Amino acid sequence: MNQDYIKPDAWSIIEEEFDTGRVKSSESLFSIGNGAMGQRANFEEHYSGPSFQGSYIGGVFYPDKTKVGWWKNGYPEYFAKVLNAPNWIGINVFINDEALDLYTCKEVKNFRRELNMKEGFLARSFEATLPGGAQVEVKAVRFLSIVNDELGAIKYEVTPLSGDAKVRFDPYLDGSITNTDANWEERFWKTLEVKTEADRGYIVSKTLKTEFHVGTYMQSEVLKSGKKLDISPEVCTDEDSVTFSYVVEAAKGETAVIIKYAGYVTDMNHKRADLIHGASLVLDKAVSKGFDQLKNEQKEAWASIWEMADITISGDVKAQQGIRFNIFQLNQTYLGKDERLNIGPKGFTGEKYGGSTYWDTEAYCIPFYMATKDQKVARKLLAYRHNHLEKAKENAQKLGFSNGAALYPMVTMNGEESHNEWEITFEEIHRNGAMVFAIYNYVRFTGDFSYIPEKGLEVMIAIARFWHQRANFSKAKNKYVILGVTGPNEYENNVNNNWYTNYIAKWCIEYCLEMIDKVKDGHQEDYTRVMGLTSLNEGEMADWREVAEGMYFPYSEDHGVYLQQDGFLDKEIIPVSELDKKQRPINQKWSWDRILRSCYIKQADVLQGFYFFADHFSKEELEKHFDFYEPLTVHESSLSPCVHSIQAALLGRMEQAYEFYVRTSRLDLDDYNKEVEEGCHITSMAGTWMSIVEGFGGMRVENDQLSFKPQIPEQWDAYSFKINFRDRILKVHVSGKETKFSLEGEDSLEILVNGKKVEVSPEAPVSI
Amino acid sequence: MNQDYIKPDAWSIIEEEFDTGRVKSSESLFSIGNGAMGQRANFEEHYSGPSFQGSYIGGVFYPDKTKVGWWKNGYPEYFAKVLNAPNWIGINVFINDEALDLYTCKEVKNFRRELNMKEGFLARSFEATLPGGAQVEVKAVRFLSIVNDELGAIKYEVTPLSGDAKVRFDPYLDGSITNTDANWEERFWKTLEVKTEADRGYIVSKTLKTEFHVGTYMQSEVLKSGKKLDISPEVCTDEDSVTFSYVVEAAKGETAVIIKYAGYVTDMNHKRADLIHGASLVLDKAVSKGFDQLKNEQKEAWASIWEMADITISGDVKAQQGIRFNIFQLNQTYLGKDERLNIGPKGFTGEKYGGSTYWDTEAYCIPFYMATKDQKVARKLLAYRHNHLEKAKENAQKLGFSNGAALYPMVTMNGEESHNEWEITFEEIHRNGAMVFAIYNYVRFTGDFSYIPEKGLEVMIAIARFWHQRANFSKAKNKYVILGVTGPNEYENNVNNNWYTNYIAKWCIEYCLEMIDKVKDGHQEDYTRVMGLTSLNEGEMADWREVAEGMYFPYSEDHGVYLQQDGFLDKEIIPVSELDKKQRPINQKWSWDRILRSCYIKQADVLQGFYFFADHFSKEELEKHFDFYEPLTVHESSLSPCVHSIQAALLGRMEQAYEFYVRTSRLDLDDYNKEVEEGCHITSMAGTWMSIVEGFGGMRVENDQLSFKPQIPEQWDAYSFKINFRDRILKVHVSGKETKFSLEGEDSLEILVNGKKVEVSPEAPVSI
Repeated sequence: MNQDYIKPDAWSIIEEEFDTGRVKSSESLFSIGNGAMGQRANFEEHYSGPSFQGSYIGGVFYPDKTKVGWWKNGYPEYFAKVLNAPNWIGINVFINDEALDLYTCKEVKNFRRELNMKEGFLARSFEATLPGGAQVEVKAVRFLSIVNDELGAIKYEVTPLSGDAKVRFDPYLDGSITNTDANWEERFWKTLEVKTEADRGYIVSKTLKTEFHVGTYMQSEVLKSGKKLDISPEVCTDEDSVTFSYVVEAAKGETAVIIKYAGYVTDMNHKRADLIHGASLVLDKAVSKGFDQLKNEQKEAWASIWEMADITISGDVKAQQGIRFNIFQLNQTYLGKDERLNIGPKGFTGEKYGGSTYWDTEAYCIPFYMATKDQKVARKLLAYRHNHLEKAKENAQKLGFSNGAALYPMVTMNGEESHNEWEITFEEIHRNGAMVFAIYNYVRFTGDFSYIPEKGLEVMIAIARFWHQRANFSKAKNKYVILGVTGPNEYENNVNNNWYTNYIAKWCIEYCLEMIDKVKDGHQEDYTRVMGLTSLNEGEMADWREVAEGMYFPYSEDHGVYLQQDGFLDKEIIPVSELDKKQRPINQKWSWDRILRSCYIKQADVLQGFYFFADHFSKEELEKHFDFYEPLTVHESSLSPCVHSIQAALLGRMEQAYEFYVRTSRLDLDDYNKEVEEGCHITSMAGTWMSIVEGFGGMRVENDQLSFKPQIPEQWDAYSFKINFRDRILKVHVSGKETKFSLEGEDSLEILVNGKKVEVSPEAPVSI
Repeated sequence: MNQDYIKPDAWSIIEEEFDTGRVKSSESLFSIGNGAMGQRANFEEHYSGPSFQGSYIGGVFYPDKTKVGWWKNGYPEYFAKVLNAPNWIGINVFINDEALDLYTCKEVKNFRRELNMKEGFLARSFEATLPGGAQVEVKAVRFLSIVNDELGAIKYEVTPLSGDAKVRFDPYLDGSITNTDANWEERFWKTLEVKTEADRGYIVSKTLKTEFHVGTYMQSEVLKSGKKLDISPEVCTDEDSVTFSYVVEAAKGETAVIIKYAGYVTDMNHKRADLIHGASLVLDKAVSKGFDQLKNEQKEAWASIWEMADITISGDVKAQQGIRFNIFQLNQTYLGKDERLNIGPKGFTGEKYGGSTYWDTEAYCIPFYMATKDQKVARKLLAYRHNHLEKAKENAQKLGFSNGAALYPMVTMNGEESHNEWEITFEEIHRNGAMVFAIYNYVRFTGDFSYIPEKGLEVMIAIARFWHQRANFSKAKNKYVILGVTGPNEYENNVNNNWYTNYIAKWCIEYCLEMIDKVKDGHQEDYTRVMGLTSLNEGEMADWREVAEGMYFPYSEDHGVYLQQDGFLDKEIIPVSELDKKQRPINQKWSWDRILRSCYIKQADVLQGFYFFADHFSKEELEKHFDFYEPLTVHESSLSPCVHSIQAALLGRMEQAYEFYVRTSRLDLDDYNKEVEEGCHITSMAGTWMSIVEGFGGMRVENDQLSFKPQIPEQWDAYSFKINFRDRILKVHVSGKETKFSLEGEDSLEILVNGKKVEVSPEAPVSI
């Protein structure tokens, strides 16, 4: 953890040191993305020091053959990997034929890097003394366009400081890239074509096995003293790469500039034969607009995102920076344009977790996208799972389930399971519940019931069938039990009757039965279609109901709490506070064996259930469970602090809620878990948003109405956020004195504030 | 399973078909070994069909970097692999320059292979028509000398049948071999030197990482019509191999013969610089004796093994063949000459399980070696673990244990853990109990108490410390519990309070405390030494005792049985007999998930405890537990049927005991689990021996006396075995009518037969 490295700033992430030991961490933090592609903040010029190269394309993956110690039946053949894609940011720089490489420079001064979140660009500047003595000043600006998500642009400026200099720019494309996490040290890409056309370069590559075809392209222009130079570059190609060489004679103090337009086109959006043509059209447009106009469009596009998604915090610049970083990264990762894409836990900032889709999307991300974007975006995320329903059924079948039961994968790129630890893949089945919860949550928030008859019901039926089959009747307990699972708390494996899993299983069945009735009543056509498709009958539904009604929940009379799982109280219960700090984080300090036997909880488990189903439990019950479980929780999952922040706020424990908030919002910026160099924790960033809106703001939906119970941490003067509730934009501004609600649009809206009805109209903001 | 493929024969394993689909299975079944090295029954001449090449050297291994999906703290860096070693059996054969390759021959007639167990050799004969039309008859005999365990010899005879022929023999050594199960498809060997000297060839190789140095050598002689030919062979070497070429012009019906002496010398027994010299000395001796004398010595050496170890069965040739195959393979694998070696689950017959040491040795093999060899052999097996004590302490330390607690590895070559599934490596800790049980069993049988003060006590104290730390106090149960384990039944993982584990843990502590007192009383010097070494004091021992006395055992009042683990009765209990046969074996047909949730037991677990501690439980208790657990047991571990055979015999259920006996004794011969091509189940073969001696014969040791309760399956006329009990050789012959006890040596021996004292003297065998 390093709380002071990133400079506090309301709108930017800033570093002001060049520290070779921090290059990889900063490459993660300063990542840029546009929802369709993204990349780590690798330097444009060659860098020979430790670095983690990464440029990623949404949806493009490689099925890397699974590595396991001992094969178990049911394992998927592969672990899907997000792919490090051909490099297009590269611009090698030579000063009087000497390579500029920050790792070998005699001195690097005034190094500054800024991720400008307001306008959506990455800037870097420094003064360097090369080993040969030449001094130069460098400024580089780069962005990935969210207006045209196939395009990126770089402006790279070099000013000789110590004398006149020959500045050579070698912009290049490189297809010979590899993944750091390749299981078998194989290359994942094959270059099909390397082509140049005047000042343009193209590489067409395909991924092995999955056969994604990708065109990587570039065009550069070179300027001096603001004037474009007419240089015919030297062109050099080999089987995987293309390099153009531009030489500019720059006097001392005179600035040589290269502008590079580049990016990817893929066969997800173009015909394979048209990739180069498609890229050339992108270039035509980009060059005709020019760098400045593109950058301006970028600024405007980000302004419109911020207009809706921003959260302001006054009086606490670090908190402000933290929440904006979270909101910015979420928008860099997923913008809701493409139903085939989803939100990987590391987004476009690293390879870990394979860039695939986890239950994080349904459990943590949906609320953010529902409230800060058009509701179609959240519907697209739901539809992603509907599109994968057949694969989820196949997955269940592989594990021995029948009758169209579905088990959604723990990790996926295309609907197939692609994770391979039995205790997760086979046992962390609670994820299936999150799929249904997300539908419920979506309908509750948006009021768009139509998703259920049109798509959701099929998913819910397949999942209810899974739960019905997965539970079994225990004669010993005279109840239905669910054996051999891993709950959200992954520091327990293969446990029986995980309370959260049993609870969400029961709820899934009951909610499904309720929705079947509702669809039957109001959507006869869909009802007939779905019943026909699924061959569901009353007898089967009665069987489901028996399981739901007879579900067992472990409970301790002594403590008055539901137990996380059977036998939890056999553990030695010692609060985290009594644990020697040297033993933490336990996932780095302890053997897996010791972690499993301990009482320590990785992330909210019972409390996760209390969060999802807050209205099923009283505040007293929540308090009891919070007081029992939180002291045993080590929060070693990025998904833990946000839920606890919300629950603490609900209990009026604002000091604790604030602590959890800081931890979730600055998890990566302050590198709490000493792992940010692997990438940022994108999905948990949506949890940060929730901890303000649902935690401090106390926002809920109750009977089709928005409800708030605003509180404010004493460290803050005020905070504000906006909510798109059923196409009504409500702005909430909370200060220590009052909460102000204002509304955009024409009609007024009735909301609940601390349980009381309040009418807000566009003309008359309300202060409470 | 294929019950009729191997021809029934009392002393030999015989196949009489050449079936390319069975080549790999037969390569396992016809494996030969001499305790120091061993090999699969690969053909000498080139074979281009599916084959699994394997030649292994005891103790020579490679630490293959572990493959796991997701690294967990505490995992060992590597999985130890038994190594496929340089090939020295190869003799390529050309008939008129056409290669003899059984896979491509037009016709193969009268194919016969025999593993002669009585004399310890492998013979093969066939008539083949080559693609070009030439017909030849081939006879090959091969053995690995147990007189000089660095030496092997081959006699290979070719007789042209269709006309005169030029027969070319190309004996070779090949160091460019690989393992089938190499995790990273790496080569494990580096050839250091290829050398020829007249008619001798040598390869010196070393294993990568472990740096075992091995010399592989050969010398050949060629004969026609029984007369040695004086041919100077053509010699061809490359960086990894050496080939000699001998051409013999043989008239139709005239036999060309090559005799090849070859084998390994290693730096476990020679200086590295002397390997070639060492090999040349072996060759000098071998050549001077000649093939026939060597083969005769082999026969005599095997006769002396059989003299002590043989079990005869009359009236059931398949049962006779089965038990001799088991005894033969055990002796091929381990002869007790070298304290550094042990008994791998597949011996020298395959790569699976890495050829390493498992708890199988202590739990299953010790009784066989104790009773059929000098008791020093069993003591050597115990000392193997004493030699690894420091590594076992390191292993425990890695998992978070302290104070000199030891956890013996699940799998090892040199004392280090080398297995990498958390549910096994970290959790299958009951193996630690088997280490102590073996000591107890050894002392009980041999009466050699001296092992305990000299070596055993240190091991027992370190293990008692482990159990003391591994248990924790459950306030909920007011008892000590052991959480998160895998019992002998590996179809349950990470369970709480596995009855077997808890029972053996408690016993280990109590037995250790008892032995400490005994050593204190009678071996003051050792007592002082061990107490000094371990810093054990009364307070710590009192803590141990508290854990042992307060140990929790799951029990069902309803069923009157101990439960295999907490929550066992929450499972759906459906006997195996009601399971659709198409679902079996479940480890091939079901997902791991489904197996774990089911009630099905892979191998004896509670019943394993009832076997070890038979005198702790009444026959009624055994019966109850047998009737509860056996119907739920799928016996998908080779180690299961033998224990059940013994228990069924004890309960007087001879029909069932016999069924289990057949299953264990002919497991590989009849390929019950359709996997014999991977190698034979060597360690479970010792269980087969136990099911006759301890099961049918009812042999136990009670208060320093041998006790018998002989029964006989109705399928048999009679059976007999010999027991070395404290250097007294007792022969037991059981028929339907009577049991005859006869004694070798001079003094008489008092034994118990069906609970009654019987005096047997060498002069007067006793019939009962």
